[in-house]
Amino acid sequence: MTPSPFPVIRLKPKTKPQAIRRGYPWVFANEVVTDRRTRSLEPGSIAILEDAERAPLAIVGVNPDSKIIGRVLDAPDGGPIDQAWFVQRFRKALSLRERLFPTPFYRLIHAEADGLPGVIIDRFGDIAVVQPNAAWADRLLPEMTAALAEVTGVTTILKNSGGRGRSLEGLDDADATLLGDAPTAPIPVEMNGAIYMADLIGGQKTGLFYDQRPNHAFAARLAHGARVLDVFSHVGGFGLAALAAGATQVHCIDGSESALDLARAGAGRMNMDAALTTQRADAFAALAELGDAAERFDVVVCDPPAFAPSQKAREAGLRAYERVARLAAPLVSEDGYLVLCSCSHAADLSAFTGACLRGIGRAGRRAQLIHTGQAGPDHPLLPQLAESGYLKALFFRL
Amino acid sequence: MTPSPFPVIRLKPKTKPQAIRRGYPWVFANEVVTDRRTRSLEPGSIAILEDAERAPLAIVGVNPDSKIIGRVLDAPDGGPIDQAWFVQRFRKALSLRERLFPTPFYRLIHAEADGLPGVIIDRFGDIAVVQPNAAWADRLLPEMTAALAEVTGVTTILKNSGGRGRSLEGLDDADATLLGDAPTAPIPVEMNGAIYMADLIGGQKTGLFYDQRPNHAFAARLAHGARVLDVFSHVGGFGLAALAAGATQVHCIDGSESALDLARAGAGRMNMDAALTTQRADAFAALAELGDAAERFDVVVCDPPAFAPSQKAREAGLRAYERVARLAAPLVSEDGYLVLCSCSHAADLSAFTGACLRGIGRAGRRAQLIHTGQAGPDHPLLPQLAESGYLKALFFRL
Repeated sequence: MTPSPFPVIRLKPKTKPQAIRRGYPWVFANEVVTDRRTRSLEPGSIAILEDAERAPLAIVGVNPDSKIIGRVLDAPDGGPIDQAWFVQRFRKALSLRERLFPTPFYRLIHAEADGLPGVIIDRFGDIAVVQPNAAWADRLLPEMTAALAEVTGVTTILKNSGGRGRSLEGLDDADATLLGDAPTAPIPVEMNGAIYMADLIGGQKTGLFYDQRPNHAFAARLAHGARVLDVFSHVGGFGLAALAAGATQVHCIDGSESALDLARAGAGRMNMDAALTTQRADAFAALAELGDAAERFDVVVCDPPAFAPSQKAREAGLRAYERVARLAAPLVSEDGYLVLCSCSHAADLSAFTGACLRGIGRAGRRAQLIHTGQAGPDHPLLPQLAESGYLKALFFRL
Repeated sequence: MTPSPFPVIRLKPKTKPQAIRRGYPWVFANEVVTDRRTRSLEPGSIAILEDAERAPLAIVGVNPDSKIIGRVLDAPDGGPIDQAWFVQRFRKALSLRERLFPTPFYRLIHAEADGLPGVIIDRFGDIAVVQPNAAWADRLLPEMTAALAEVTGVTTILKNSGGRGRSLEGLDDADATLLGDAPTAPIPVEMNGAIYMADLIGGQKTGLFYDQRPNHAFAARLAHGARVLDVFSHVGGFGLAALAAGATQVHCIDGSESALDLARAGAGRMNMDAALTTQRADAFAALAELGDAAERFDVVVCDPPAFAPSQKAREAGLRAYERVARLAAPLVSEDGYLVLCSCSHAADLSAFTGACLRGIGRAGRRAQLIHTGQAGPDHPLLPQLAESGYLKALFFRL
């Protein structure tokens, strides 16, 4: 037997290896023997994880600077972690997306669930935007980039370093163009019959939120002939899908004028600018004002940023969700629809639903729950990592 | 003020009225003062529910023979509970379904969530099948039937008394034709591009399971060019949708030959009989045999009957779900899909997911979870009644 080319990190005797054997993908710093050799491993090194009895458990990406010191990449006899390895992962991920979507616009890699821990890749036709939010992936970016181009044929690959995870990993926040030329203007993306303008350079996240696609589609089923209010609209995710489905009027509210510019540009491409109005405002203040003016809409959608991104922010976040529901419910016409979303990891479905119902109740309304939406299937979950189910979209009828 | 035409039932002093005020729809026998007058109320009487301080809380349907002695029908100043009242409820329910579905084939009334406690109505074009699973509804069947015909224009109304709820309410199990003429043969129902044959007289439940419609649709997205195994297939819910989506071959297994006859008849109407094979068998035995024969399918669906219909059956039910997963996972080709469903009230999503993952793990496979499906939006939930979210469909990629 040839000696392994990889350094070794080892679980402490008290750390049970069962979770890793069952597919849990993370090893925490306090679970491994952090001798000098382990501490001196460069962030992003590839290593073999062993249990306390020296039985190999997995190939891991190591980051001594992160609370997650090891991320499981493969079985101990897998690897090497080279371009060919990435090609395999990309092929598997691509075959799911090609089955699900008629055009190449989707999340191609959803981190752990797609076998690339910490890596997010969104595809926009010939362009891919990569978020390498873990040290191992940052270090192997050349191999990953080459494999990505090989498998998908994309001609432009952008590195987006805005992910919250990068600072936890001690990684820089410098964006870069890894392949080809960065687009000089927002690009059009068709989803659910609507056209969205995605700013891949200056926008939020990778420029567009693919995760809400099925929820946009469900809301659109409610929108024919309707007057629709889209609060926290970003580039018009729900609003433009509603327009495409025959809404007579859509009003988008967002705090970012550049996002609203993109919403208007999308509506323009759809030749539906006349049916769209936009308002740059604080959403809470705008909701309260519309309530004071006794405005009514057939469909009201509130898709706020994560109010409860962490356990610490959980209680305050749930209160904020309740407040959104309380302010939004009065704006819904009798037998109309209220769509309330949360992308907070820390607010689970039951807590979020409770907060929404309290808010609706305080507004003096009663609700049926007709649908509970989640992130689209290009955002698979690793079942061992329950927290990856972050997106909730509740469709109420009032 | 004129005296109320309704008898009164009253909460015990220790019973908090808050739940009812917040929309909880059930009053249990041990929560009310069961004096002689209350006990002598005829099953199905309409009454006013008061709190211990004699403040009216709701109009309820009363059944002294049921553990659920009162079912909330309306606010205390609502009613009377007559044909016009039913017309209002049906209009509201119909407007949701007409928005959601292009043709009149859907669950029209989903009990408490649609404001008609204990009442299930499935619509098949001009025919409605009513399950009046609560005494108040059984008693008001003439008014309900008249209102149903008035609002929907259906020309045939069938009473299906096979619901489990009826025996708990002390109601008979006699089916009847309430309006028009019962169909003499199974009728074709188009969903997701497939044609299902629904036996409204002799079939299970109301003849077809509308609740799985969005899950059939999602599975169909995975089925193009695929070899599909549909276990516990009933009339071919998943299998025929897969055929319509371009599956090359579908094999249906069910314990009922008459259900399989209907599946074949549906495939015949679709001119796709050649691609469908059926097998009457015990599903567990058939799965084990296919495993012994090392058969592989691109998509495997298991949609068993409720293994855990009650809390008492929960543990045994979860073991049965685990066994289904363990037997089915080996039949899924590499990178193929495994769809596992549960319609058990007592197995919540997290327990059911855990059982499935244990089964998949014991079969030596790993899984991504790409989608979690639920009942379609013509099966709304009353948020106050969490147990109404019974249907789970987990879409794994192995």
